[in-house]
Amino acid sequence: MKTKNIGLRGIEVADTRISNIDGEKGRLIYRGYDIVDLTKYSTFEETAYILIYDQLPTTHQLNEFKSKLSDARSIPRQMQRNMSNWRKDADPMDMLQAFVAALAGYYDEEFSTKEASYDRAINLVAKVPTIVSSWQRLRSGEEIIDPDPSLSHAGNFLYMMSGNRPDPEVEKIFDTCLILHADHTFNASTFTARQVASTRAHMYSASSAAIGALSGELHGGANTEVMKMLLEIDKQENVESWVKERLSEGQKIMGMGHAVYKTFDPRAQVLKEMSRRLAAKTGQRWFDMTEGVETTTMSEMKLKKDMDIYPNVDLYSASIYYMLGIPVDLNTPIFAISRSVGWAAHIIEEKFAEAAPKPALYRPKAVYVGKYCGPEGCEYKTIDLRG
Amino acid sequence: MKTKNIGLRGIEVADTRISNIDGEKGRLIYRGYDIVDLTKYSTFEETAYILIYDQLPTTHQLNEFKSKLSDARSIPRQMQRNMSNWRKDADPMDMLQAFVAALAGYYDEEFSTKEASYDRAINLVAKVPTIVSSWQRLRSGEEIIDPDPSLSHAGNFLYMMSGNRPDPEVEKIFDTCLILHADHTFNASTFTARQVASTRAHMYSASSAAIGALSGELHGGANTEVMKMLLEIDKQENVESWVKERLSEGQKIMGMGHAVYKTFDPRAQVLKEMSRRLAAKTGQRWFDMTEGVETTTMSEMKLKKDMDIYPNVDLYSASIYYMLGIPVDLNTPIFAISRSVGWAAHIIEEKFAEAAPKPALYRPKAVYVGKYCGPEGCEYKTIDLRG
Repeated sequence: MKTKNIGLRGIEVADTRISNIDGEKGRLIYRGYDIVDLTKYSTFEETAYILIYDQLPTTHQLNEFKSKLSDARSIPRQMQRNMSNWRKDADPMDMLQAFVAALAGYYDEEFSTKEASYDRAINLVAKVPTIVSSWQRLRSGEEIIDPDPSLSHAGNFLYMMSGNRPDPEVEKIFDTCLILHADHTFNASTFTARQVASTRAHMYSASSAAIGALSGELHGGANTEVMKMLLEIDKQENVESWVKERLSEGQKIMGMGHAVYKTFDPRAQVLKEMSRRLAAKTGQRWFDMTEGVETTTMSEMKLKKDMDIYPNVDLYSASIYYMLGIPVDLNTPIFAISRSVGWAAHIIEEKFAEAAPKPALYRPKAVYVGKYCGPEGCEYKTIDLRG
Repeated sequence: MKTKNIGLRGIEVADTRISNIDGEKGRLIYRGYDIVDLTKYSTFEETAYILIYDQLPTTHQLNEFKSKLSDARSIPRQMQRNMSNWRKDADPMDMLQAFVAALAGYYDEEFSTKEASYDRAINLVAKVPTIVSSWQRLRSGEEIIDPDPSLSHAGNFLYMMSGNRPDPEVEKIFDTCLILHADHTFNASTFTARQVASTRAHMYSASSAAIGALSGELHGGANTEVMKMLLEIDKQENVESWVKERLSEGQKIMGMGHAVYKTFDPRAQVLKEMSRRLAAKTGQRWFDMTEGVETTTMSEMKLKKDMDIYPNVDLYSASIYYMLGIPVDLNTPIFAISRSVGWAAHIIEEKFAEAAPKPALYRPKAVYVGKYCGPEGCEYKTIDLRG
C-alpha cells in the first residue's frame, strides 16, 4: 500500500458533541456524562434522550419521550408477513439490515427538518427491538408477541423474546448493557451512518447501512465470536491451555484489546461485575471461564511480549447475553438495539450541524496503482484482436 | 468546525487498481482503459468483466461471464411477494436498499474466499435490474416480466420494464449509459461499500449500504433532480431566465459542476451526443433545453464570477432516461444498476487486497466539542434533583 492513512486512524473527520473517549484514563462520556454514572443512576430511556437531544431531560420531558417510544414499538403486520417469507436460517443481521431499510417503505414522515428527524429517531429506536424479537419468534416457529407498553425498553424486549416478564434484577442488567453500547464516537458503523447521511439520505437508510457495518466480524460481530470461543473451550479446566495455544500460534483472542483504550475499557469493567452477579444467580460457569480468558491472555501477553492488553466491551457481554437465554447469533442484533440511539444522534448531527463550515459529502482520495500502463491507461484492443 | 479534513477531501484512504480520474484532462479510466474507448468498442458486460476481474476477457471468458450473468437474473418468487406488500408510493431507492440486503436471506453462498465473492458479484449485478423492473411493474399494477436470457443486460432491463424488445439503437444508448456509470473511484457510495466491507461484512450488506449513500440528493439523487428541473422549466423559451434567476439568488444549477473535474466530464460529453441523437429520433425538446441550461450556466458563471463550470454526468443522463420512457424516480436506481459493478469490484479489492499492509477497518478520529464541561465531562444529577 502506498496510502499513509490506513483505516483513517488518527485522521480527524468531523466535530462531534455526542461522545468522547479518554483512552488513557479509560473513560467514556455521553454528552458530558460519564457512562459509569449513567449505569448507576440512569436508565436506557434517559440515556437515549440525553444522546439524541443533547440535554438531561426534565421529568416531564422524559415521560413524554418514554411514552412516544413505547407507542412506536409495533411493526406493521405486512412486515411480519414479509419476515415469515425469509429462510429460517438467515443471519439475523441480514434480516435486520433489510427490515430497517424497509421501514422507509411504511413510514413516510417528513425528514427535511431537524424536528422531524427526532421523530424518525424515536421510530427507529422503538422498532429495532421489535424487529429482532419478531424474527426470533418466527424462526423458532412461535407466535410473535406484541409489545407491552407498560414495560421498559429493556424489559419489553426480554418479554417479546420469551413471553415472560423479566425479574427486576435481570431487567436492570439488560438495561445497563443497552446503556453501555449506545454510543462510542466514530466507530465503523457510526461513521458509515454519518457518511450515508452526508449525501442527505434519510435516517432509516443511514441506519440500515450502519447495521451492515456492524455485522462484520471485526466490528459488532466480535461479541458473537466471543461466545463461540467460550462454547468451544467448554470447560474451565481447558481455558488456560486453549488461550496459550492460540497465543503461541500468533492468533488474537476475541474480546481482548482495543484500538483506542490503553487501559481497562470502562464498559468492560461494568459488564464484568454484571456477568459475575448473573453467574452467581444462575450457577453457570461462563463468568469464571471468561475471567480465565482475561487473566491468561493478560499474563501471557505481558510475559511473552511485554504488552498490556485489556478486555474490551465484547468479552463480558457475551456471557451475560448467554446467561439471559439469548441465542448466540442475536448478540450483534442486541448491539444494534442499543447503538441505534448513537446512530440516530450522529445522523442528526451530520445533517443539521450548526457550526460552520458544515460537514460535506465524504469523498476521500484514492491512490491509483492500476497494473496496466500506469495512471495514463493503455490502448484498448477489441475482442477480435484478443482471441 | 475545528476539523481540518471536511468531507475527507484530499485525504488518501486506500490504494486502488480499479479506476482513475484525471480531473485536469477530463479522462476516466477503468483498469487502464479509457471509458471513451469502452463506449465506442465495448459492451456493458465486457466492461463489467474488466472491472470485476481486472483484465480484458477472451471470447471464451466473456461468453461464460455473460451466460452466468443471464442465468442469475431471476429473483425469488417470495421476494416478489414481499415487494407487493410495500406501499406503492414508496421510494424506489428505499425498496432497492432493502431488497439488496434481503438477497442475503435467500442466497447463502460462501463468502470467505475471493473466488466465492466473484459469484456473489455476478449474482448482485444480475439481480439489481430485476429488482428495479419488478418493482416498477408491481407499483404500476402490471405483471412482473421474467428476464429473457437471449437479451443483453441493457436490452433485457428495457424489456422487463416495458414488455417490448428495444430497438438496437436504443439498446446501444442504454448500454453506453451503463458503461459510463459503472465506476468512479472513491465516490460517497463506493467509499461506503468499502467501509462496510472493511468490517468483513459480505457483499450484499456492503452494496445495500452503498445504495443508501447513492440515494442522497447530493450523490446519485442528483440526476432525478436534473429531470425535475427540466420539467419545472418546461419550455425552451424559459431556460435562460430560469437559470439566470437561480444563479442570481446564489443557487446551484443541478447537473453543473463537479468536485474533481476541472474541465468537461468525459462522461457528460458522450451522454450529450446520445441525448442529441435521441431527441432527433423522438422529436422531443429535452436535449435543446438541457443544452440551454448548460450554455446559460457556463456563460453566466464566467461573466459574473469569472468561473469555469462544466456539465457533470447527471446533466445529460436525465433527458436520455426520460426520452427512453423511464419514470423520473428510477434515474437513481438505474445509476445503481450500473454502479453495482464498481461496488462489487471495490468490495473485493477492500477485502482481498494482496499488497501489504492491507486495508484496515476504517475508524477515523472525532473532534469532541461537547457543550457541557469540556472533554472531562461533568457531574450527573439524578432526575429528582432536576425537576
